[in-house]
Formats: sequence, structure tokens, C-alpha cells
Amino acid sequence: MTIELPLLNQEDSTCCAPATGAAIASDDAEYIARTFKALSDPTRVRLLSMIGATPSGEACICDLTAPVGLSQPTVSHHMKQLVDAGLVEREQRGRWAYFRLVDGALQRAIADLPL
Amino acid sequence: MTIELPLLNQEDSTCCAPATGAAIASDDAEYIARTFKALSDPTRVRLLSMIGATPSGEACICDLTAPVGLSQPTVSHHMKQLVDAGLVEREQRGRWAYFRLVDGALQRAIADLPL
Repeated sequence: MTIELPLLNQEDSTCCAPATGAAIASDDAEYIARTFKALSDPTRVRLLSMIGATPSGEACICDLTAPVGLSQPTVSHHMKQLVDAGLVEREQRGRWAYFRLVDGALQRAIADLPL
Repeated sequence: MTIELPLLNQEDSTCCAPATGAAIASDDAEYIARTFKALSDPTRVRLLSMIGATPSGEACICDLTAPVGLSQPTVSHHMKQLVDAGLVEREQRGRWAYFRLVDGALQRAIADLPL
């Protein structure tokens, strides 16, 4: 006795298992994307890097403008986006604003990425 | 004998040393910002994560659409941005496109950041 089996059309069938295993959940993805949006501009990447590279771990806005070749209002605008994303904290001292990295913020953003 | 020294007005003076020490150079900042721009959207973060989470290290476009709840053309558009950023590579097999992570691409983007 023979049984007829339907032919599988490999090109038309779906394949593999659903790719959701250890993937990042929606809420975490929102947080990660928000962090990376703050770093999707080369000037902000450089500003973050400059703050991290100071011996004291902090930088005055007055020392951040010249290296990136931009006006203080423009640099302040970029810094606000880094602060809003939770990557940097701001402290006003007299007429100057000082910035330092928020400990662990960037690590949290990359922790669940497939590195 | 006494010598008169000028009073330093701490609030008006500039401070600290220029914050350029080990900071990221412009070209590298462009590369990093381009990579992070591709990951500045939560759907793309999830897509990258899903590909990285598959046992085989690759995922078919047909298995990526349902988990993110978007149409195949929309997911294809997101995937193109990940490919253009150099984070993912694409291979066409029959009617399906398959994606896998580009080894070391994300590591290169974060290597010089102040973590």
C-alpha cells in the first residue's frame, strides 16, 4: 500500500522557528533606542567622549565649545539632549554649567544588545 | 614688603583644561553616530536583537514580521537601514531574504565610548 504525501514547496513555506527567543522586549527597546537617538549625532558623540576623557570626569560647558567648533548655545542644546536621555548630568556653578557622565547609563543601554 | 595680587573672579574666569585628551576624533564620531542612528528606533533594536537571539545566528524576513507586528515591506525597510549601517548582512535565498549580524560591527561602534 502506498500513501500519497503532499509535496512541500520549500520556497512558499515559512521557515525556521519564530525569532523571539531571548530578544529584547518592547519597553527595553524603547529605552535603548532613546539612548542611541541621543548618540545619533557626531557632535554629541564627541561631547560625551570629551566629558569621559577629562581627568576629573566632568567638563565645563566653557571647555566644550572650542573643540567642537560650535557656539555655546548650540553646544548647550546638544548637552540638553544628552541630559534628557539620561546619559549626562548637569550642575550649575555660578555662571557655568558642568557636566559629568551618569554612571552605568550607557552600559545599561548596550547590556542586552547582541555584541 | 607686600605685593598686590589681582583678585581672581572665579565666576568669570574660564576653568579647567581643554577637554580634548583622549576624546573621539571627528571621523570616528561620524561612524559611531551613523551606527547609533540605525539603532535609534525601537523596532530596529528589536529586529537586531531577534537576529542575534536565533540559535543559527540568522533569521528569515518571514520570521521577523509577526513578532514586531509590522508588514513585510515595513520590516524590509527597517532591515535595509540596519544593512546600510553595516550592522547586518543580507542574503537572498529563493523568495526569502535572510539576515545575520556583521561580526564585530557593534563592538567597533562602542569600543571608544566612555563606558
